[in-house]
Amino acid sequence: MTGAEVRPGGRAARVRSALLDAAATALVECGPAGFDLAELARRAGIGKTTVYRRWGTVGAVVGDLVADMAETSLPRADTGTLDGDLAANADLVRATLADPRQGRLFAALVAAATADPATADALRDFYDRRISEWQPCVADAVARGELDPGTDTAAVVRAVSAPLYYRLLTRGEPPTEDDARRAAGAAAAAARAGVFLS
Amino acid sequence: MTGAEVRPGGRAARVRSALLDAAATALVECGPAGFDLAELARRAGIGKTTVYRRWGTVGAVVGDLVADMAETSLPRADTGTLDGDLAANADLVRATLADPRQGRLFAALVAAATADPATADALRDFYDRRISEWQPCVADAVARGELDPGTDTAAVVRAVSAPLYYRLLTRGEPPTEDDARRAAGAAAAAARAGVFLS
Repeated sequence: MTGAEVRPGGRAARVRSALLDAAATALVECGPAGFDLAELARRAGIGKTTVYRRWGTVGAVVGDLVADMAETSLPRADTGTLDGDLAANADLVRATLADPRQGRLFAALVAAATADPATADALRDFYDRRISEWQPCVADAVARGELDPGTDTAAVVRAVSAPLYYRLLTRGEPPTEDDARRAAGAAAAAARAGVFLS
Repeated sequence: MTGAEVRPGGRAARVRSALLDAAATALVECGPAGFDLAELARRAGIGKTTVYRRWGTVGAVVGDLVADMAETSLPRADTGTLDGDLAANADLVRATLADPRQGRLFAALVAAATADPATADALRDFYDRRISEWQPCVADAVARGELDPGTDTAAVVRAVSAPLYYRLLTRGEPPTEDDARRAAGAAAAAARAGVFLS
């Protein structure tokens, strides 16, 4: 999502797009508690009344931003091997979290979710969608005989993301390419060892 | 740390203890952005002037709270096997994050760290200490011949915590005993497969 992007759908959609772009930028620049609705309206060039009537709270805006992000599909890799697919997933997550703007945005969204149930619900839905988009990589590995049929496919995909988020959130450091390589390798090794059998 | 705990060190130490207890409770009840120094002073029964002079900002109080938490040592397990030690570590982290008060406190601290560099530094130091307390479990496994001598011992311990924090922070759900079992098993399997060779 960028400010230059033009969305279909008329004025209401343009207003939403402008406000969500402003919210993402404010989250990156000020953190989840560093702005209010009036500030978002000013940044987006939208009347305060419209923003208060349509969203009402900063939490509702942030939840709407996450819902909007969830709509953008990120197609899974299909390299033909579990190791290749998980490496591609790890590198995608690494690149997102290591990007200065995106990394700060995701850290701010996680922080906002700890204090706002609506944001937490939206974020859980966001991750459920992302995980489900990549589960077929693990299901294909099962079909190829690389993994046991009882493997919890979602757990394997989550295991790739976990150490990369853990590094960003507990150390405040962007994950490195070495972190990504280890995250993918650890998830694959654990899956092959039967740790994720359900 | 509890309100009932009496610390040595005279009035200054008692003031610090009372304020840090109030800060932990405010973080649990209100989140990282839900209170100010005046509110902390009121909750702790300390004069506002003292609090402003000694800490100056909420970020400084939260950083001091984390530094205080880092002082409390949690001894490593010594079960005689890598699997047993990592299972004990996973269960300790699970129990902390699944405890309603502690889980909310850690989520709030991670959230605060995303917006305040002093808190982020203190939190990184906190986790460095916790990880280093448990690294000997992995070093002992190397000495017993369970793992390759080139194993990055800190990385193995971090791999146990990562999925438990990931679940709490991205799903807003306390980690379960099954999550802990998988976290320990995945870290051990990956270590045995050589994923954490440095």
